[in-house]
Amino acid sequence: MPAERITSRQNGRIKEIIRLTSSADARKETGAFVLEGARLCGDAAASGIEILLLCVSDSAAGRKEAGTLTAVAKETMTVPDSLFAQISETKSPQGLLCVAKTPSLWRKMLRPGGRYLALENISDPGNLGTIARTAEALGLDGLILSGGCDPFSPKVQRASMGSLLRLPLVKADSLPVFLKNQRLPSFAAVPAMDAADAGLEDFAGGGIICIGNEGNGLTAKTEKSCSRRITIPMAGRAESLNAAAAAAILCYLLTRG
Amino acid sequence: MPAERITSRQNGRIKEIIRLTSSADARKETGAFVLEGARLCGDAAASGIEILLLCVSDSAAGRKEAGTLTAVAKETMTVPDSLFAQISETKSPQGLLCVAKTPSLWRKMLRPGGRYLALENISDPGNLGTIARTAEALGLDGLILSGGCDPFSPKVQRASMGSLLRLPLVKADSLPVFLKNQRLPSFAAVPAMDAADAGLEDFAGGGIICIGNEGNGLTAKTEKSCSRRITIPMAGRAESLNAAAAAAILCYLLTRG
Repeated sequence: MPAERITSRQNGRIKEIIRLTSSADARKETGAFVLEGARLCGDAAASGIEILLLCVSDSAAGRKEAGTLTAVAKETMTVPDSLFAQISETKSPQGLLCVAKTPSLWRKMLRPGGRYLALENISDPGNLGTIARTAEALGLDGLILSGGCDPFSPKVQRASMGSLLRLPLVKADSLPVFLKNQRLPSFAAVPAMDAADAGLEDFAGGGIICIGNEGNGLTAKTEKSCSRRITIPMAGRAESLNAAAAAAILCYLLTRG
Repeated sequence: MPAERITSRQNGRIKEIIRLTSSADARKETGAFVLEGARLCGDAAASGIEILLLCVSDSAAGRKEAGTLTAVAKETMTVPDSLFAQISETKSPQGLLCVAKTPSLWRKMLRPGGRYLALENISDPGNLGTIARTAEALGLDGLILSGGCDPFSPKVQRASMGSLLRLPLVKADSLPVFLKNQRLPSFAAVPAMDAADAGLEDFAGGGIICIGNEGNGLTAKTEKSCSRRITIPMAGRAESLNAAAAAAILCYLLTRG
Protein backbone atom coordinates (compact mmCIF):
# COMPACT_ATOMS: atom_id res chain seq x y z
CA MET A 1 0.00 0.00 0.00
CA PRO A 2 1.49 3.38 -0.94
CA ALA A 3 2.29 5.73 1.92
CA GLU A 4 -0.16 8.52 2.51
CA ARG A 5 1.20 12.07 2.29
CA ILE A 6 0.35 14.41 5.17
CA THR A 7 1.49 18.03 5.27
CA SER A 8 -0.79 19.75 7.78
CA ARG A 9 -0.57 19.85 11.55
CA GLN A 10 -4.38 20.02 11.52
CA ASN A 11 -4.63 16.53 10.03
CA GLY A 12 -6.59 14.21 12.33
CA ARG A 13 -3.83 11.62 12.58
CA ILE A 14 -1.16 14.17 13.40
CA LYS A 15 -3.40 15.51 16.15
CA GLU A 16 -3.90 11.97 17.41
CA ILE A 17 -0.14 11.33 17.55
CA ILE A 18 0.34 14.52 19.57
CA ARG A 19 -2.50 13.52 21.90
CA LEU A 20 -1.06 10.02 22.42
CA THR A 21 2.37 11.50 23.09
CA SER A 22 1.21 13.85 25.79
CA SER A 23 -1.75 12.19 27.46
CA ALA A 24 -1.79 9.01 29.57
CA ASP A 25 -5.60 9.15 29.45
CA ALA A 26 -5.60 9.16 25.65
CA ARG A 27 -3.30 6.13 25.68
CA LYS A 28 -5.57 4.30 28.08
CA GLU A 29 -8.73 5.15 26.08
CA THR A 30 -7.36 4.05 22.75
CA GLY A 31 -5.05 1.22 23.82
CA ALA A 32 -2.32 2.72 21.67
CA PHE A 33 0.93 4.55 22.35
CA VAL A 34 3.72 6.32 20.49
CA LEU A 35 7.29 5.12 20.03
CA GLU A 36 9.98 7.27 18.47
CA GLY A 37 13.24 6.28 16.82
CA ALA A 38 14.31 3.42 14.56
CA ARG A 39 15.65 1.32 17.41
CA LEU A 40 12.55 1.49 19.58
CA CYS A 41 10.09 1.02 16.68
CA GLY A 42 12.18 -1.94 15.50
CA ASP A 43 12.27 -3.42 19.02
CA ALA A 44 8.48 -3.16 19.17
CA ALA A 45 8.04 -4.95 15.85
CA ALA A 46 10.56 -7.62 16.91
CA SER A 47 8.60 -8.14 20.15
CA GLY A 48 5.45 -8.85 18.12
CA ILE A 49 3.79 -5.54 18.95
CA GLU A 50 1.33 -4.36 16.34
CA ILE A 51 2.46 -1.20 14.50
CA LEU A 52 -0.77 0.60 13.68
CA LEU A 53 0.70 3.63 11.97
CA LEU A 54 4.22 4.49 10.87
CA CYS A 55 5.20 8.11 10.37
CA VAL A 56 8.33 8.83 8.32
CA SER A 57 9.95 12.20 7.66
CA ASP A 58 11.21 13.02 4.17
CA SER A 59 14.85 12.80 5.32
CA ALA A 60 14.30 9.36 6.82
CA ALA A 61 12.34 7.95 3.87
CA GLY A 62 15.46 6.46 2.29
CA ARG A 63 16.62 4.67 5.43
CA LYS A 64 16.65 0.88 5.50
CA GLU A 65 14.70 0.85 8.79
CA ALA A 66 11.92 2.90 7.18
CA GLY A 67 11.49 0.18 4.55
CA THR A 68 11.54 -2.66 7.10
CA LEU A 69 9.02 -0.93 9.31
CA THR A 70 6.75 0.04 6.39
CA ALA A 71 6.50 -3.66 5.56
CA VAL A 72 5.08 -4.52 8.99
CA ALA A 73 3.04 -1.36 9.67
CA LYS A 74 -0.71 -1.40 8.99
CA GLU A 75 -0.46 2.09 7.49
CA THR A 76 2.35 4.45 6.68
CA MET A 77 2.41 8.19 6.20
CA THR A 78 5.20 10.49 5.09
CA VAL A 79 5.54 14.05 6.36
CA PRO A 80 7.86 17.00 5.71
CA ASP A 81 10.78 17.30 8.16
CA SER A 82 9.30 20.52 9.54
CA LEU A 83 6.06 18.76 10.48
CA PHE A 84 7.94 15.80 11.95
CA ALA A 85 9.88 18.20 14.18
CA GLN A 86 6.56 19.45 15.54
CA ILE A 87 5.33 16.02 16.60
CA SER A 88 8.71 14.72 17.78
CA GLU A 89 9.69 14.89 21.44
CA THR A 90 13.41 14.87 20.73
CA LYS A 91 15.69 17.74 19.80
CA SER A 92 17.29 15.96 16.84
CA PRO A 93 14.52 13.71 15.51
CA GLN A 94 15.53 10.59 13.60
CA GLY A 95 12.41 10.95 11.45
CA LEU A 96 10.77 7.65 12.41
CA LEU A 97 7.87 7.30 14.80
CA CYS A 98 5.04 4.84 15.16
CA VAL A 99 1.71 4.43 16.85
CA ALA A 100 1.65 0.94 18.30
CA LYS A 101 -0.98 -1.17 20.00
CA THR A 102 -0.30 -1.25 23.76
CA PRO A 103 0.97 -4.75 24.49
CA SER A 104 -0.66 -6.84 27.21
CA LEU A 105 2.27 -6.90 29.56
CA TRP A 106 -0.05 -6.64 32.53
CA ARG A 107 -0.23 -9.69 34.76
CA LYS A 108 -2.48 -10.37 37.72
CA MET A 109 -0.32 -12.89 39.52
CA LEU A 110 3.26 -13.07 40.67
CA ARG A 111 5.42 -16.11 40.06
CA PRO A 112 6.00 -18.19 43.24
CA GLY A 113 9.60 -17.62 44.31
CA GLY A 114 9.79 -14.74 41.83
CA ARG A 115 11.89 -11.61 42.15
CA TYR A 116 10.21 -8.25 41.64
CA LEU A 117 10.70 -4.56 42.19
CA ALA A 118 7.61 -2.62 43.25
CA LEU A 119 7.82 1.05 42.31
CA GLU A 120 5.62 3.45 44.22
CA ASN A 121 5.00 6.88 42.71
CA ILE A 122 8.24 7.11 40.71
CA SER A 123 7.81 10.52 39.13
CA ASP A 124 10.77 10.89 36.80
CA PRO A 125 10.21 9.18 33.42
CA GLY A 126 13.96 8.68 32.99
CA ASN A 127 14.18 6.87 36.33
CA LEU A 128 11.26 4.55 35.54
CA GLY A 129 12.73 3.71 32.12
CA THR A 130 16.24 3.16 33.47
CA ILE A 131 14.97 0.95 36.30
CA ALA A 132 13.05 -1.17 33.78
CA ARG A 133 16.17 -1.53 31.64
CA THR A 134 18.18 -2.62 34.70
CA ALA A 135 15.45 -5.02 35.82
CA GLU A 136 15.39 -6.75 32.45
CA ALA A 137 19.18 -6.89 32.15
CA LEU A 138 19.50 -8.52 35.57
CA GLY A 139 16.69 -10.99 34.96
CA LEU A 140 13.93 -9.82 37.28
CA ASP A 141 10.53 -11.49 36.86
CA GLY A 142 8.75 -8.20 36.45
CA LEU A 143 7.89 -4.80 37.82
CA ILE A 144 4.99 -3.93 40.08
CA LEU A 145 3.81 -0.38 39.42
CA SER A 146 1.81 1.68 41.87
CA GLY A 147 1.14 5.27 40.86
CA GLY A 148 3.76 7.42 39.17
CA CYS A 149 4.49 7.67 35.47
CA ASP A 150 2.65 5.79 32.76
CA PRO A 151 5.05 3.10 31.47
CA PHE A 152 3.80 3.78 27.95
CA SER A 153 4.75 7.44 27.92
CA PRO A 154 7.28 8.13 25.17
CA LYS A 155 9.89 9.50 27.62
CA VAL A 156 9.71 6.37 29.78
CA GLN A 157 9.91 4.14 26.70
CA ARG A 158 12.99 5.96 25.42
CA ALA A 159 14.85 5.54 28.72
CA SER A 160 13.88 1.87 28.96
CA MET A 161 15.47 1.11 25.57
CA GLY A 162 12.77 -1.41 24.72
CA SER A 163 12.74 -3.23 28.08
CA LEU A 164 9.23 -1.96 28.81
CA LEU A 165 8.00 -3.73 25.69
CA ARG A 166 9.03 -7.08 27.16
CA LEU A 167 9.02 -7.03 30.98
CA PRO A 168 5.93 -8.43 32.73
CA LEU A 169 4.12 -5.64 34.60
CA VAL A 170 1.72 -5.83 37.51
CA LYS A 171 -0.46 -2.90 38.48
CA ALA A 172 -1.16 -2.31 42.17
CA ASP A 173 -3.76 0.39 42.80
CA SER A 174 -2.83 0.29 46.47
CA LEU A 175 0.59 -1.18 47.15
CA PRO A 176 -0.05 -1.91 50.88
CA VAL A 177 -3.19 -3.89 50.03
CA PHE A 178 -1.44 -5.65 47.16
CA LEU A 179 1.52 -6.71 49.33
CA LYS A 180 -0.75 -8.17 52.00
CA ASN A 181 -2.28 -10.50 49.42
CA GLN A 182 1.06 -11.92 48.28
CA ARG A 183 2.95 -14.90 49.62
CA LEU A 184 6.33 -13.48 48.62
CA PRO A 185 8.27 -11.63 51.32
CA SER A 186 8.37 -7.89 50.79
CA PHE A 187 11.21 -5.49 51.56
CA ALA A 188 10.86 -1.75 52.03
CA ALA A 189 13.95 0.08 50.74
CA VAL A 190 14.48 3.02 53.07
CA PRO A 191 17.35 5.48 53.64
CA ALA A 192 17.42 4.71 57.37
CA MET A 193 20.34 3.63 59.51
CA ASP A 194 18.20 1.36 61.68
CA ALA A 195 17.04 -0.78 58.74
CA ALA A 196 18.71 -4.10 57.90
CA ASP A 197 21.73 -4.04 55.56
CA ALA A 198 20.38 -5.10 52.13
CA GLY A 199 23.69 -6.82 51.40
CA LEU A 200 23.18 -9.24 54.30
CA GLU A 201 19.58 -10.07 53.44
CA ASP A 202 18.53 -13.53 52.27
CA PHE A 203 16.68 -13.28 48.97
CA ALA A 204 16.98 -16.99 48.13
CA GLY A 205 13.21 -17.50 48.22
CA GLY A 206 12.59 -14.50 45.96
CA GLY A 207 10.72 -11.43 47.06
CA ILE A 208 9.48 -7.96 46.30
CA ILE A 209 11.69 -4.94 46.96
CA CYS A 210 9.67 -1.74 47.22
CA ILE A 211 11.18 1.57 46.08
CA GLY A 212 9.44 4.86 46.68
CA ASN A 213 9.15 8.30 45.16
CA GLU A 214 12.39 10.21 44.44
CA GLY A 215 11.69 12.97 46.95
CA ASN A 216 9.39 11.39 49.51
CA GLY A 217 10.34 7.73 49.56
CA LEU A 218 7.77 5.03 50.24
CA THR A 219 4.43 5.92 51.81
CA ALA A 220 4.24 5.09 55.52
CA LYS A 221 1.52 2.51 54.82
CA THR A 222 3.64 0.65 52.30
CA GLU A 223 6.67 0.70 54.58
CA LYS A 224 4.53 -0.81 57.36
CA SER A 225 3.08 -3.47 55.08
CA CYS A 226 6.47 -4.89 54.17
CA SER A 227 7.93 -7.90 55.97
CA ARG A 228 11.32 -6.19 56.33
CA ARG A 229 12.97 -2.76 56.11
CA ILE A 230 16.27 -2.79 54.25
CA THR A 231 18.83 -0.15 53.34
CA ILE A 232 22.05 0.39 51.44
CA PRO A 233 24.55 1.72 54.00
CA MET A 234 25.84 5.18 53.02
CA ALA A 235 29.22 6.67 53.74
CA GLY A 236 29.47 10.11 52.25
CA ARG A 237 27.68 13.39 52.62
CA ALA A 238 25.38 12.72 49.66
CA GLU A 239 21.96 12.49 51.25
CA SER A 240 20.91 9.45 49.31
CA LEU A 241 21.42 7.52 46.15
CA ASN A 242 19.44 8.48 43.07
CA ALA A 243 16.37 6.18 42.76
CA ALA A 244 17.72 4.44 39.66
CA ALA A 245 21.15 3.87 41.27
CA ALA A 246 19.56 2.43 44.42
CA ALA A 247 17.27 0.26 42.28
CA ALA A 248 20.28 -1.07 40.34
CA ILE A 249 22.07 -2.18 43.52
CA LEU A 250 18.92 -3.69 45.02
CA CYS A 251 18.03 -5.51 41.77
CA TYR A 252 21.55 -6.91 41.75
CA LEU A 253 21.30 -8.16 45.34
CA LEU A 254 17.81 -9.57 44.79
CA THR A 255 18.78 -11.59 41.73
CA ARG A 256 22.05 -12.72 43.31
CA GLY A 257 20.51 -13.86 46.59
CA MET B 1 27.16 46.07 49.99
CA PRO B 2 23.92 46.80 48.11
CA ALA B 3 23.08 44.51 45.24
CA GLU B 4 23.75 45.84 41.79
CA ARG B 5 20.78 46.05 39.43
CA ILE B 6 21.26 44.60 35.95
CA THR B 7 18.54 44.64 33.30
CA SER B 8 20.32 44.09 30.00
CA ARG B 9 21.43 40.86 28.39
CA GLN B 10 24.30 42.88 26.92
CA ASN B 11 25.76 43.53 30.36
CA GLY B 12 29.30 42.15 30.61
CA ARG B 13 28.58 40.00 33.63
CA ILE B 14 25.48 38.47 32.11
CA LYS B 15 27.51 37.61 29.03
CA GLU B 16 30.19 36.09 31.27
CA ILE B 17 27.63 33.90 33.07
CA ILE B 18 26.33 32.63 29.73
CA ARG B 19 29.89 31.94 28.55
CA LEU B 20 30.76 30.05 31.77
CA THR B 21 27.56 28.04 31.47
CA SER B 22 28.21 26.87 27.95
CA SER B 23 31.98 26.65 27.56
CA ALA B 24 34.39 24.30 29.29
CA ASP B 25 37.25 26.38 27.87
CA ALA B 26 35.89 29.54 29.49
CA ARG B 27 35.67 27.70 32.82
CA LYS B 28 39.25 26.51 32.50
CA GLU B 29 40.55 29.98 31.51
CA THR B 30 38.87 31.82 34.34
CA GLY B 31 38.92 29.15 37.06
CA ALA B 32 35.25 29.84 37.71
CA PHE B 33 32.02 27.97 37.06
CA VAL B 34 28.27 28.44 37.37
CA LEU B 35 25.94 26.74 39.84
CA GLU B 36 22.18 27.08 39.67
CA GLY B 37 19.57 26.59 42.36
CA ALA B 38 19.41 27.34 46.08
CA ARG B 39 20.46 23.83 47.09
CA LEU B 40 23.55 23.66 44.91
CA CYS B 41 24.68 27.24 45.67
CA GLY B 42 24.17 26.55 49.38
CA ASP B 43 26.11 23.27 49.14
CA ALA B 44 28.98 25.14 47.51
CA ALA B 45 29.07 27.78 50.26
CA ALA B 46 28.87 25.05 52.92
CA SER B 47 31.80 23.26 51.28
CA GLY B 48 33.91 26.41 51.61
CA ILE B 49 33.79 27.25 47.91
CA GLU B 50 34.16 30.94 47.16
CA ILE B 51 31.00 32.53 45.73
CA LEU B 52 32.30 35.25 43.42
CA LEU B 53 28.97 36.54 42.16
CA LEU B 54 25.40 35.81 43.16
CA CYS B 55 22.58 36.47 40.71
CA VAL B 56 19.05 36.70 42.11
CA SER B 57 15.80 37.13 40.16
CA ASP B 58 13.16 39.54 41.42
CA SER B 59 10.86 36.66 42.42
CA ALA B 60 13.59 35.00 44.44
CA ALA B 61 14.81 38.16 46.16
CA GLY B 62 12.59 37.59 49.19
CA ARG B 63 13.72 34.00 49.76
CA LYS B 64 15.69 33.15 52.88
CA GLU B 65 18.38 31.42 50.83
CA ALA B 66 18.92 34.60 48.81
CA GLY B 67 19.73 36.45 52.03
CA THR B 68 22.05 33.73 53.33
CA LEU B 69 23.92 33.54 50.04
CA THR B 70 24.15 37.34 49.67
CA ALA B 71 25.94 37.39 53.02
CA VAL B 72 28.71 35.09 51.76
CA ALA B 73 28.91 36.22 48.11
CA LYS B 74 31.61 38.71 47.10
CA GLU B 75 29.10 40.54 44.93
CA THR B 76 25.38 40.26 44.30
CA MET B 77 23.23 41.39 41.42
CA THR B 78 19.49 41.34 40.99
CA VAL B 79 17.83 40.85 37.62
CA PRO B 80 14.26 40.80 36.26
CA ASP B 81 12.71 37.31 36.01
CA SER B 82 12.68 37.58 32.22
CA LEU B 83 16.45 38.11 32.12
CA PHE B 84 17.04 35.31 34.64
CA ALA B 85 15.08 32.95 32.38
CA GLN B 86 17.51 33.78 29.57
CA ILE B 87 20.61 32.83 31.53
CA SER B 88 19.06 29.85 33.32
CA GLU B 89 19.51 26.32 31.96
CA THR B 90 16.36 24.99 33.63
CA LYS B 91 12.77 25.18 32.46
CA SER B 92 11.40 26.46 35.77
CA PRO B 93 14.26 28.53 37.21
CA GLN B 94 14.40 28.97 40.98
CA GLY B 95 15.89 32.43 40.47
CA LEU B 96 19.21 31.80 42.21
CA LEU B 97 22.51 31.25 40.44
CA CYS B 98 26.11 31.90 41.33
CA VAL B 99 29.52 32.12 39.76
CA ALA B 100 31.89 30.23 42.04
CA LYS B 101 35.63 29.72 42.13
CA THR B 102 36.47 26.25 40.85
CA PRO B 103 37.54 24.23 43.90
CA SER B 104 40.87 22.41 43.90
CA LEU B 105 39.44 18.92 43.99
CA TRP B 106 42.17 17.70 41.68
CA ARG B 107 44.67 15.29 43.22
CA LYS B 108 47.83 13.87 41.68
CA MET B 109 48.09 10.74 43.80
CA LEU B 110 45.78 7.89 44.71
CA ARG B 111 45.45 6.67 48.27
CA PRO B 112 47.22 3.30 48.86
CA GLY B 113 44.48 0.67 49.21
CA GLY B 114 41.97 3.24 47.94
CA ARG B 115 38.84 2.52 45.93
CA TYR B 116 38.24 4.51 42.76
CA LEU B 117 36.15 4.56 39.64
CA ALA B 118 37.93 5.66 36.47
CA LEU B 119 35.54 7.10 33.89
CA GLU B 120 36.70 7.14 30.29
CA ASN B 121 34.88 9.43 27.87
CA ILE B 122 31.53 9.46 29.68
CA SER B 123 29.53 11.71 27.37
CA ASP B 124 26.21 12.20 29.12
CA PRO B 125 26.33 14.94 31.78
CA GLY B 126 23.51 13.26 33.71
CA ASN B 127 25.46 9.99 33.87
CA LEU B 128 28.64 11.68 35.09
CA GLY B 129 26.73 13.59 37.77
CA THR B 130 24.75 10.54 38.89
CA ILE B 131 27.88 8.39 39.08
CA ALA B 132 29.59 11.03 41.24
CA ARG B 133 26.57 11.13 43.56
CA THR B 134 26.66 7.33 43.87
CA ALA B 135 30.42 7.31 44.42
CA GLU B 136 30.16 9.79 47.27
CA ALA B 137 27.18 8.05 48.87
CA LEU B 138 28.97 4.70 48.88
CA GLY B 139 32.23 6.14 50.20
CA LEU B 140 34.60 5.90 47.25
CA ASP B 141 37.95 7.64 47.63
CA GLY B 142 37.51 9.57 44.42
CA LEU B 143 36.90 9.59 40.69
CA ILE B 144 39.52 9.38 37.98
CA LEU B 145 38.38 11.27 34.89
CA SER B 146 39.74 10.68 31.42
CA GLY B 147 38.05 12.62 28.62
CA GLY B 148 34.30 13.11 28.48
CA CYS B 149 32.30 15.87 30.12
CA ASP B 150 33.74 18.67 32.18
CA PRO B 151 32.80 17.97 35.84
CA PHE B 152 32.17 21.68 36.34
CA SER B 153 29.53 21.97 33.63
CA PRO B 154 26.22 23.09 35.14
CA LYS B 155 24.36 19.98 33.88
CA VAL B 156 26.88 17.63 35.50
CA GLN B 157 26.79 19.62 38.73
CA ARG B 158 22.99 19.48 38.86
CA ALA B 159 22.91 15.70 38.47
CA SER B 160 25.65 15.24 41.07
CA MET B 161 23.60 17.09 43.72
CA GLY B 162 26.71 18.67 45.20
CA SER B 163 28.87 15.51 45.27
CA LEU B 164 31.21 16.98 42.67
CA LEU B 165 31.97 19.84 45.04
CA ARG B 166 33.41 17.39 47.55
CA LEU B 167 34.75 14.24 45.87
CA PRO B 168 38.50 14.09 45.19
CA LEU B 169 39.13 14.04 41.44
CA VAL B 170 42.13 12.82 39.50
CA LYS B 171 42.68 13.75 35.87
CA ALA B 172 44.21 11.15 33.55
CA ASP B 173 45.06 12.51 30.11
CA SER B 174 45.71 8.97 28.96
CA LEU B 175 44.03 6.33 31.11
CA PRO B 176 46.24 3.41 29.90
CA VAL B 177 49.42 5.34 30.80
CA PHE B 178 47.93 6.45 34.11
CA LEU B 179 46.94 2.90 35.11
CA LYS B 180 50.42 1.56 34.37
CA ASN B 181 51.90 4.01 36.88
CA GLN B 182 49.61 2.94 39.74
CA ARG B 183 50.16 0.24 42.33
CA LEU B 184 46.43 -0.37 42.77
CA PRO B 185 44.94 -3.25 40.77
CA SER B 186 42.73 -2.07 37.90
CA PHE B 187 39.56 -3.70 36.60
CA ALA B 188 38.06 -3.12 33.14
CA ALA B 189 34.26 -3.28 33.28
CA VAL B 190 33.15 -4.89 30.03
CA PRO B 191 29.86 -6.33 28.76
CA ALA B 192 31.52 -9.63 27.85
CA MET B 193 30.54 -13.14 28.88
CA ASP B 194 34.15 -14.31 29.08
CA ALA B 195 35.13 -11.69 31.69
CA ALA B 196 35.23 -12.54 35.40
CA ASP B 197 32.02 -12.14 37.43
CA ALA B 198 32.40 -8.81 39.28
CA GLY B 199 30.45 -10.27 42.20
CA LEU B 200 33.12 -12.91 42.81
CA GLU B 201 36.05 -10.52 42.58
CA ASP B 202 38.24 -9.71 45.59
CA PHE B 203 38.39 -5.96 46.13
CA ALA B 204 39.76 -6.18 49.68
CA GLY B 205 42.99 -4.40 48.72
CA GLY B 206 41.13 -1.60 46.96
CA GLY B 207 41.39 -0.93 43.28
CA ILE B 208 40.30 1.07 40.28
CA ILE B 209 37.27 0.00 38.27
CA CYS B 210 37.28 1.49 34.77
CA ILE B 211 33.99 2.33 33.04
CA GLY B 212 33.86 3.42 29.43
CA ASN B 213 31.77 5.54 27.12
CA GLU B 214 28.01 4.86 27.00
CA GLY B 215 28.02 3.71 23.39
CA ASN B 216 31.53 2.43 22.79
CA GLY B 217 32.69 1.15 26.15
CA LEU B 218 36.34 1.35 27.18
CA THR B 219 39.03 1.94 24.57
CA ALA B 220 40.94 -1.21 23.62
CA LYS B 221 44.14 0.24 25.10
CA THR B 222 42.55 0.86 28.48
CA GLU B 223 40.97 -2.59 28.54
CA LYS B 224 44.40 -4.12 27.86
CA SER B 225 46.11 -2.00 30.52
CA CYS B 226 43.85 -3.30 33.30
CA SER B 227 44.92 -6.16 35.56
CA ARG B 228 41.51 -7.87 35.19
CA ARG B 229 38.40 -7.82 33.01
CA ILE B 230 35.17 -7.98 35.00
CA THR B 231 31.49 -8.00 34.10
CA ILE B 232 28.03 -7.96 35.61
CA PRO B 233 26.31 -11.10 34.31
CA MET B 234 23.16 -10.26 32.30
CA ALA B 235 20.03 -12.27 31.97
CA GLY B 236 17.52 -10.45 29.83
CA ARG B 237 17.35 -9.16 26.31
CA ALA B 238 18.46 -5.66 27.32
CA GLU B 239 21.81 -5.27 25.61
CA SER B 240 23.51 -3.75 28.57
CA LEU B 241 22.98 -1.77 31.72
CA ASN B 242 22.92 2.01 31.53
CA ALA B 243 26.39 3.37 32.47
CA ALA B 244 25.13 4.90 35.73
CA ALA B 245 23.33 1.67 36.74
CA ALA B 246 26.43 -0.42 36.02
CA ALA B 247 28.57 2.09 37.92
CA ALA B 248 26.22 1.87 40.92
CA ILE B 249 26.51 -1.92 41.12
CA LEU B 250 30.29 -1.85 40.61
CA CYS B 251 30.76 0.92 43.21
CA TYR B 252 28.73 -1.15 45.62
CA LEU B 253 30.85 -4.27 45.05
CA LEU B 254 34.10 -2.31 45.21
CA THR B 255 33.30 -0.68 48.55
CA ARG B 256 31.89 -3.91 49.97
CA GLY B 257 34.84 -6.09 48.96
